[in-house]
Amino acid sequence: MDQTPRYTPLAASLPASVPFVGPETQERASGRAFTARLGANESLFGPSPAAIAAMAQAASEVWMYGDPENHDLRAALAAHHGVRPDNIVVGEGIDGLLGYLVRLTVAPGDAVVTSDGAYPTFNFHVAGFGGVLHKVPYNGNHEDPEALLSCAAERRPKLVYIANPDNPMGSHHPGATIAAMLDHLPEGTLLVLDEAYIDLAPPGTAAVIAADDPRVIRLRTFSKGYGMAGLRVGYAIAAPGLISAFNKVRNHFGMGRIAQAGALAALRDQVWLAHVQAEVARARATLSQIATANGLTPLPSATNFVTMECGRDGDFARAVLRGLIARGIFARMPFVAPHDRCIRVSCGDAAALAAFAEALPAALAEARG
Amino acid sequence: MDQTPRYTPLAASLPASVPFVGPETQERASGRAFTARLGANESLFGPSPAAIAAMAQAASEVWMYGDPENHDLRAALAAHHGVRPDNIVVGEGIDGLLGYLVRLTVAPGDAVVTSDGAYPTFNFHVAGFGGVLHKVPYNGNHEDPEALLSCAAERRPKLVYIANPDNPMGSHHPGATIAAMLDHLPEGTLLVLDEAYIDLAPPGTAAVIAADDPRVIRLRTFSKGYGMAGLRVGYAIAAPGLISAFNKVRNHFGMGRIAQAGALAALRDQVWLAHVQAEVARARATLSQIATANGLTPLPSATNFVTMECGRDGDFARAVLRGLIARGIFARMPFVAPHDRCIRVSCGDAAALAAFAEALPAALAEARG
Repeated sequence: MDQTPRYTPLAASLPASVPFVGPETQERASGRAFTARLGANESLFGPSPAAIAAMAQAASEVWMYGDPENHDLRAALAAHHGVRPDNIVVGEGIDGLLGYLVRLTVAPGDAVVTSDGAYPTFNFHVAGFGGVLHKVPYNGNHEDPEALLSCAAERRPKLVYIANPDNPMGSHHPGATIAAMLDHLPEGTLLVLDEAYIDLAPPGTAAVIAADDPRVIRLRTFSKGYGMAGLRVGYAIAAPGLISAFNKVRNHFGMGRIAQAGALAALRDQVWLAHVQAEVARARATLSQIATANGLTPLPSATNFVTMECGRDGDFARAVLRGLIARGIFARMPFVAPHDRCIRVSCGDAAALAAFAEALPAALAEARG
Repeated sequence: MDQTPRYTPLAASLPASVPFVGPETQERASGRAFTARLGANESLFGPSPAAIAAMAQAASEVWMYGDPENHDLRAALAAHHGVRPDNIVVGEGIDGLLGYLVRLTVAPGDAVVTSDGAYPTFNFHVAGFGGVLHKVPYNGNHEDPEALLSCAAERRPKLVYIANPDNPMGSHHPGATIAAMLDHLPEGTLLVLDEAYIDLAPPGTAAVIAADDPRVIRLRTFSKGYGMAGLRVGYAIAAPGLISAFNKVRNHFGMGRIAQAGALAALRDQVWLAHVQAEVARARATLSQIATANGLTPLPSATNFVTMECGRDGDFARAVLRGLIARGIFARMPFVAPHDRCIRVSCGDAAALAAFAEALPAALAEARG
């Protein structure tokens, strides 16, 4: 057995497991393309046509590195949110930014608090830097601010993670509930507020928090409402000290030229975002009808997906999911009990939802049989 | 002074400095766009038209996450190099891959060996994970394999970095010289072979090394010869154990859909690469003529840039560089003495080289005056 390279003890201890298996991996395994891609909460409604045009234009300019300061995009985001550019860092999706944030704050043995069943990629990063995760249960289908705060008071963690709206359950808290958490955080604990789905949530879901508040960092993305998951552009809003700390560790030229141009054009096309919001609302209603018609219970959603209770245990829901996948429907489900009684289906266009509606009865029958 | 967040001791100790200032930052400061962009070794000859078309096509599909396994691109790269897909990891440029590699291997206090004046972003990552850099001098204008090995024998580092061809001097070693280094590495030391410029080097510069050799990792990029610096696609070739270790820490969905499609199309267009190689050879000759005509000494180059000795000390070369920048020419120079007697100018098209030729005499006169 070779001894080269010598990994760090931490790296050697990490599992080779990955947070998510991609649909392409499943397609290669089955030898068949999915009919409907409804598993990763991508936006089947696509990006703004103006953003597509901007990306196509930028393709011919891609011989140039992107601006490492992401100046124009940060300026536009700052104007959009009524904050300053030094409140904003742009990165390779929320996933990339979470990795940098954990690296900046979590040393081996440091405590971090999250909910059991919340975003696995955050957990991947915490484990990857040797942090110790403390998980509190959801309160029903909602992440539980009181439980998170109670655990934080006990553990005094570096970070407390909450997603609002939540994934995988699709629930949300009023923004005021989130804002009220800040006054109950222990000194030195940063609230990591993942707002990936905020563009699809009801008014009032975004917490009103000063961008300079040092107790919180908010994460946003162009992957969901803006429909550009494959472009890899996320950003964070926080106090300038924390924002500038990202410069100590980030991949400075990591944001490519097409990514910056596409995100900038998408941000400018708020009419398209409103169109997507309307389509998502329509698709949520359709998905809920399909679920109900098949004896499932759709949960209220503040996101671009609908989580559906299958009415039995995790094994049953996993069988339903297998049945859907076997019928060409890419869907996913919560990993953790008791949420794993559910399946999770992304909003889609009429054709994709029709394919889901067609596949579901047989998948359910098979799972029940 | 607020106490939130609490950074790790390592993060708190890191400087806020960045490896490179982008040309856009300089343009914003001066209020004027550069006439010729010859500072970052970008390819002014652009990407393959087929790659541009593939990226434009992928823009409309960017609502989908990219395949987290980068399956098709890895398969194509494996075929191109005559290795297996499990010898290849794709990442967010060589910069991103270097970050992951250092994270996997370098814990605080671990030794790493490089050359004084070699790639600063590698040093940025090593410092960022608390490694201790040991630097050996160049031998003239070449990185010095014997000095690197001698230092490695003494320090028994986790990593030894060498770039072949070299940046910023443009020199190269025969591949056989690099391959011969492997047998003299200490047990447990990994050779990090940065071949970013290999596509522009003379035949024989690429070392013949088995992909499964556990003593080395080779880094390649689509940023230079393939002309897609702003797309952020690099890859590494190494033994499967090391390649799979990247899965423990990498941003699994970090490679976007446009990036994968563009790189795949670029790789397939080797005719375009040959065209770029010819243009680069022509531009190197022109740059060398311009240098000589102005009393500078161009160094032989195995890259897409020409480093030019200005004939005096670092202060003089810095003055020449300032003069070029003031005249709309984006160029750079080596950071470290004695290399900072030079300026470094990227290959460009006829218009860019003409702009450089026009600006250089005045910049030199000003610096001499």
